[in-house]
Amino acid sequence: MTEHCFWRFSRALHRAINDRCLNGLDDLIHEDVDRALYGPIDMFPFLGTRHGKHAVLDVIRHIAANVHIRRFDREATMLSADSAASMLRYSLTPRDCDKPIALRLAQFAHFKAGRVISMRVLVDTFDLVEQALVRPIHLPKIINKGQ
Amino acid sequence: MTEHCFWRFSRALHRAINDRCLNGLDDLIHEDVDRALYGPIDMFPFLGTRHGKHAVLDVIRHIAANVHIRRFDREATMLSADSAASMLRYSLTPRDCDKPIALRLAQFAHFKAGRVISMRVLVDTFDLVEQALVRPIHLPKIINKGQ
Repeated sequence: MTEHCFWRFSRALHRAINDRCLNGLDDLIHEDVDRALYGPIDMFPFLGTRHGKHAVLDVIRHIAANVHIRRFDREATMLSADSAASMLRYSLTPRDCDKPIALRLAQFAHFKAGRVISMRVLVDTFDLVEQALVRPIHLPKIINKGQ
Repeated sequence: MTEHCFWRFSRALHRAINDRCLNGLDDLIHEDVDRALYGPIDMFPFLGTRHGKHAVLDVIRHIAANVHIRRFDREATMLSADSAASMLRYSLTPRDCDKPIALRLAQFAHFKAGRVISMRVLVDTFDLVEQALVRPIHLPKIINKGQ
């Protein structure tokens, strides 16, 4: 049984981030790839949408310059012939400090001829922002009817 | 071809929220269900983890008391025999005002004998918080190496 291209892509992506080397990942991304990583782009410029392999590799290079993946756990994964969906819990270490960042994300990927052609990533962004600020953001209780 | 239980569950869930009536949904949730909806529980008490049908129905009743689903778009969906993963964009209206809330979420559901036994939901929480506060939260540019 052939390995699903999602596993190959995931391994190459993690290697690219941790080793800061895009060799191996380049071949697994389609020229016309669309990528959306939803979140506050003002604070994290590597979030947002990108089109084309060059732009996507540039973002991965940018992420790799900022964080290192210490560990990750897959909480759920679904695969079909040309698609994959996964929910993951990452433990990241910023390159410039030792304070780890825990991050939960969901990714939906679509492949064409073994290469990623589209990827949407959703992050628990409020949790990410609070960790990056290294302080909690005070929130009022707003929605509380029916308790 | 039999309809996947995910579609039945989704319809019943949306009906339960909009009509504030849990009939029809009750039969589609397993007694031992685990549900996790990640986000700031201080602000939104219906987020967090719940175990058991009673607790999960209670949360859905709570959500229904606060918002109405105006529309939703499925951006990606994957189904297997007993699982489903979906990324959705919701437009919600709070029950007590007309200001719509746009919300993107990813859900991973697992079914047992046609009933939901586990559900994990990830939300773009920072976006949600800013909309609920009806003001932007000022964020510094923190991670910006490699630009």
